[in-house]
Amino acid sequence: MSEDDFGIRDGEIAVELPKNFDASLYFIGRIRTPWKTRDECPKNARESEAVCTIEVDPRWAQALTGVGTCTHLVVLYWMNRSRRDLVLQMPRHYAIGRGTFALRSPARPNPIAMSVVRLVGIEGTRLSVVGLDCLDDTPLVDIKPYFASTDSVTDAVVGWHAANKT
Amino acid sequence: MSEDDFGIRDGEIAVELPKNFDASLYFIGRIRTPWKTRDECPKNARESEAVCTIEVDPRWAQALTGVGTCTHLVVLYWMNRSRRDLVLQMPRHYAIGRGTFALRSPARPNPIAMSVVRLVGIEGTRLSVVGLDCLDDTPLVDIKPYFASTDSVTDAVVGWHAANKT
Repeated sequence: MSEDDFGIRDGEIAVELPKNFDASLYFIGRIRTPWKTRDECPKNARESEAVCTIEVDPRWAQALTGVGTCTHLVVLYWMNRSRRDLVLQMPRHYAIGRGTFALRSPARPNPIAMSVVRLVGIEGTRLSVVGLDCLDDTPLVDIKPYFASTDSVTDAVVGWHAANKT
Repeated sequence: MSEDDFGIRDGEIAVELPKNFDASLYFIGRIRTPWKTRDECPKNARESEAVCTIEVDPRWAQALTGVGTCTHLVVLYWMNRSRRDLVLQMPRHYAIGRGTFALRSPARPNPIAMSVVRLVGIEGTRLSVVGLDCLDDTPLVDIKPYFASTDSVTDAVVGWHAANKT
């Protein structure tokens, strides 16, 4: 992992973090992926058809009841190797700083990533899914059913990103 | 708030929680909604066109740079009034127990809710959005841009829910 994954680049701005935390999380499992370094990870999840494995802690086995009837899931996981104090970031390949809340970067006050995945199989507490782009051994925070009625917005636009492509 | 919001219903199953937490969160703001009790909350966000306000802590103001170019956002928030040890739940109106990870119930090991909202305005650190169904004063955990390319799946099916409606 290179130095600048943890450092600040020119144009980036960090703030002082709050003195205290407000709530705490349990890691409920681990995500197994083929990617051992950030450079190996796909730039976004739609780039890869790799099947990844979500290993849920046996304690929560019964909480998976009915999950197998879902075609797609929302997965929340913990990007535990990212700094939390950046408010303005300079993603590689972009010349302008972007606010943390306008980015999906793992560097954010609460480094929880959200991915929509396609469920391809369940065996006990192991879920096979397509659509993740995280490092191997990433801590799992939550699994939810994906409801097209409330979670799917086909015409949503991220303006700064769309402008960048034209 | 009625007793059974915190109790266990017939058919529900709780497990012993892990002894220790694994990670911690900062609340980065508050969500202001018209709903002061659970009974008042819409059953799901698409039921209501109410405009809610996300008040981001001034510390994070610069992190909102560019957010105004997004039509839709992913909002993560903390359901701080829910028990965390249920693995099988009996939602009202359903006769069969469902696994926690097959439900969007606030009762889950890590009570982080995810909603997709439409951004209707920003003034300083206050975002006006449509699509929330949470209690007034709910703690904010994260804001992300919603990318249709990776977050929208129009044909996703939650099998147990679809079967229930037919």
